[in-house]
Amino acid sequence: MIIVPVKASKDYDIVIGRGLLKNAGAYVRRVCDCETVMLVCGDIVEGLYADMVQSSLEAAGYRVCRFVYPHGEQSKTARTYFALLNALAEHGLTRADCIVALGGGVTGDLAGFAAATYQRGISYVQMPTTLLAAVDSSVGGKTAIDLPAGKNLAGAFYQPELVLCDADALNTLPEEVFRDGCAEVIKYGVIWDADLFERLKQPIRTQIEDIIARCVAIKRDVVEQDEFDTGLRGILNFGHTIGHAVEQCSGFQVSHGSAVAVGMALITKAAWMAGICEKDCVDAVYGMLRQYGLPTETIFAPDALLDAMLRDKKRSGSSITLVLPEAVGRCRLEQLPVEDMKVLLRPALEEQTWM
Amino acid sequence: MIIVPVKASKDYDIVIGRGLLKNAGAYVRRVCDCETVMLVCGDIVEGLYADMVQSSLEAAGYRVCRFVYPHGEQSKTARTYFALLNALAEHGLTRADCIVALGGGVTGDLAGFAAATYQRGISYVQMPTTLLAAVDSSVGGKTAIDLPAGKNLAGAFYQPELVLCDADALNTLPEEVFRDGCAEVIKYGVIWDADLFERLKQPIRTQIEDIIARCVAIKRDVVEQDEFDTGLRGILNFGHTIGHAVEQCSGFQVSHGSAVAVGMALITKAAWMAGICEKDCVDAVYGMLRQYGLPTETIFAPDALLDAMLRDKKRSGSSITLVLPEAVGRCRLEQLPVEDMKVLLRPALEEQTWM
Repeated sequence: MIIVPVKASKDYDIVIGRGLLKNAGAYVRRVCDCETVMLVCGDIVEGLYADMVQSSLEAAGYRVCRFVYPHGEQSKTARTYFALLNALAEHGLTRADCIVALGGGVTGDLAGFAAATYQRGISYVQMPTTLLAAVDSSVGGKTAIDLPAGKNLAGAFYQPELVLCDADALNTLPEEVFRDGCAEVIKYGVIWDADLFERLKQPIRTQIEDIIARCVAIKRDVVEQDEFDTGLRGILNFGHTIGHAVEQCSGFQVSHGSAVAVGMALITKAAWMAGICEKDCVDAVYGMLRQYGLPTETIFAPDALLDAMLRDKKRSGSSITLVLPEAVGRCRLEQLPVEDMKVLLRPALEEQTWM
Repeated sequence: MIIVPVKASKDYDIVIGRGLLKNAGAYVRRVCDCETVMLVCGDIVEGLYADMVQSSLEAAGYRVCRFVYPHGEQSKTARTYFALLNALAEHGLTRADCIVALGGGVTGDLAGFAAATYQRGISYVQMPTTLLAAVDSSVGGKTAIDLPAGKNLAGAFYQPELVLCDADALNTLPEEVFRDGCAEVIKYGVIWDADLFERLKQPIRTQIEDIIARCVAIKRDVVEQDEFDTGLRGILNFGHTIGHAVEQCSGFQVSHGSAVAVGMALITKAAWMAGICEKDCVDAVYGMLRQYGLPTETIFAPDALLDAMLRDKKRSGSSITLVLPEAVGRCRLEQLPVEDMKVLLRPALEEQTWM
């Protein structure tokens, strides 16, 4: 078991290990001394882990209610969010009670936003069951739902009481969902940690607890310096500006990890074409993405992608901030006027099949 | 002009004076250096002040969009909130842009919650146009909307950049709306400031700027000690536990101020019956409420009121915190088990017409 402590506006621990979910109640009891827990999960995770977690919570003395929604990004909406808020009210949860978010990024974002806003904030515990959620969305306190106009457009910064990451849960993930998480793991290597990037050349599953711990420690270090996302934290968006555009152009049919993989590939190529990184950086990023079966191209036209980027919330007024790799393990943030951004990206977007 | 500076997680000023709305743009420009402002107001306030404020904002160089909703508490819903979020996205507001909440408490709560959560938080400025909003909801950073199960059940703590309180705007208020605000003014006198209470025996309109400044300074002092409402801030709920129950039992047909007036009367009587305050405190509170034409009784049955209180979000687990006056200008917080609360309140609820 590995514990990664996080200091934010609220301090909490990320606990990574095997077989943690069946003892979930004891872990929650250490941080939440309340009566009632609302267990939130998607329908697939419910079938796999909800009974186990609920039994453990009940054994720890909690009254447990359950909110289950149809899995997937298409549920990360105002409708599901308000259904959850109404369920919290109907079950009589008070400010002293707690939400457990059991599942992937959608569950964490949705349940976290409900926790941030129900009665102006109640406690919540994240139990990520996907690699993506384990290394990304369960750390850093970003919660959100989507609006018709784009992903994550409504949300809050809100920290959990605890993140309980059971590596065993990753064994039941479909291969393509596991692969999605690998995209974010590769991201940490490129932006921050050349050693991590090297380690990923060995099979990831045999070293998964260490890899998760390394990723969340990186994210923790970045977020501790910039909790409210006004500067350095922007580097975590490496691959995400183009990635979100790909997701949006596809009507969210392309998964987040695949879209970020494409985004990392294209922004790295753009950085190379602009003389910001060397060719070996491009080769390393493309090679690693291919090793993990991740895409490096998209079918969407440059203009469609650029238009979608201009609607991205990372845009600030008439400029946009890009994360550009300088080498594997090092990147820089560059705030560019919209027109300059288009000039920088267009060649890479137009020549996707060129590599 | 009076300026009351507030220190919270974000520092801001409350500016109180006459003729401020026609110079609103210049005040906003001092705190928000952005491109676009979304002006949010109800339909009645739109007819009175929106053109004046919009002209001033445009003169200060802002692009101004407008979101208008049907006035009243029945609009403080998930539906209006998401319509506003979607409008912000459709008009292309970025994280750097700003919301102006022009109106009463509903507008401030609704627009403030949208500001707190759109793109995880953008700037907003409060321009209260009711006495209630001026002395209460525009100070302290509580934002919220109602859920079917109760008032203010979804929301966030979120501070404005500026509160601009134009006392001239209060001249267009219907008498019963002005009276509603007087209930909150009286509240500050009872819980904190016997001198303020004394001053209210003179006509309030001739001293309105001073009175507003005194009220917001009290609220500021309380909120600075307890921004996130974990202790002292509870005293601001004097009259509100019973008051919210009255509102809820009436299907929100009884106004907030009238409901709080009833709540202050009944909790003061309960405090006296329990030996917590003297009879002269009861007489003073009832006398002041009557002087301002505010009600001291409700038609709802004790059991209906008590049931509604148990669903109140100020309940924490199996106990509830009451604000009990010890004398005019002094009160205490008491956390009571639900059963003890019923024992304390029932005699006063049952003998409403007794005074």
